[in-house]
Amino acid sequence: MTDPKQERSRATRQRLLETTIRCLAEHGWEVSTVGFIAAEAGISRGAVQHHFRTREALILGALEHMFEERAALLDALPDPESGPDRIHTVVTGLVEAIGGELFRAALQVWTVAAADPELRSAVVPLERRFARGVHRRAVRLLRVNDSDPEMRGLIQATLDLARGLALADVLTDDSHRRARVVRAWSTQLAAALAAAGAAPSR
Amino acid sequence: MTDPKQERSRATRQRLLETTIRCLAEHGWEVSTVGFIAAEAGISRGAVQHHFRTREALILGALEHMFEERAALLDALPDPESGPDRIHTVVTGLVEAIGGELFRAALQVWTVAAADPELRSAVVPLERRFARGVHRRAVRLLRVNDSDPEMRGLIQATLDLARGLALADVLTDDSHRRARVVRAWSTQLAAALAAAGAAPSR
Repeated sequence: MTDPKQERSRATRQRLLETTIRCLAEHGWEVSTVGFIAAEAGISRGAVQHHFRTREALILGALEHMFEERAALLDALPDPESGPDRIHTVVTGLVEAIGGELFRAALQVWTVAAADPELRSAVVPLERRFARGVHRRAVRLLRVNDSDPEMRGLIQATLDLARGLALADVLTDDSHRRARVVRAWSTQLAAALAAAGAAPSR
Repeated sequence: MTDPKQERSRATRQRLLETTIRCLAEHGWEVSTVGFIAAEAGISRGAVQHHFRTREALILGALEHMFEERAALLDALPDPESGPDRIHTVVTGLVEAIGGELFRAALQVWTVAAADPELRSAVVPLERRFARGVHRRAVRLLRVNDSDPEMRGLIQATLDLARGLALADVLTDDSHRRARVVRAWSTQLAAALAAAGAAPSR
């Protein structure tokens, strides 16, 4: 049986991390102090400090949590049957999982880290690990041979495109334009994957 | 003849805008106050306020200046002769012009604007105008038929990819990976443009 006190503590930690992500995405870095996040989560500052001793620890914990959420989104994507629209469905799923609130929250952290060497040195190893996890999932979903450097480059390009599209959605609702861009990209990617599949010894 | 006083005033304004961009890119939003930028530029606060009455006006002026700088970079790109590497050369030039210090400075403004409706409403119309200018230049450089929706989607995808690559370069030097991604995408884009050129009635 789970200790009810441990269970409560885990639920508090979870609520705190989700509130941190929402606060960063909606209110930005400057507003998202420990005091503001604690109040938004309905948790005392003391309880916050029990879980995370410093603001930096809370922010890094939230980044880790964002990645777990995104990984869960990617793992939950349906694996469509082969067919002309398979690549389009997968790319749409990747773009949705990489963008949205998780992206907007992470953007706040990256942007501050860009001009803050201490935060940057804490964020970079996390980001490397996250990037590997997303890449691995994209390879699985797209069913490509990742040892082919050209295919590897196209997977990376697709993930860079997804981040560029997420950025374009930060100031305005870009969903209509994004759907067209994803469609155009998917058509090219499907052609490239078909050509690589047809010439595996290449 | 130019009035020497006007000339000096213009040079001061120029130095102020360039310093604002450098400060945003290197030190970030929070540090880049009017006082900090004035000190970095060696200009009195009074002189800054003569040119820009508020911090917001200075930041928006710097955004406009960033776009003019980027447009100048794009207009100065060599227009390579036809050949197998033409698209690769153009895409590399686009990616370089969209990234770098101008991107890092703009990222600071976008990220704050994402959580600040007042700043956002000032930034969005500027960004729309900038995006149109960059798109027009990309169409010219790539020599594509922009009225073909599929081609238009591929141009936009290329520019979104460029922004995604610029973002990936903010925390670490991503130049080696970026070169491979640009190569992989350029190969696809060249094939798509060749196919569209071979079937113009499509």
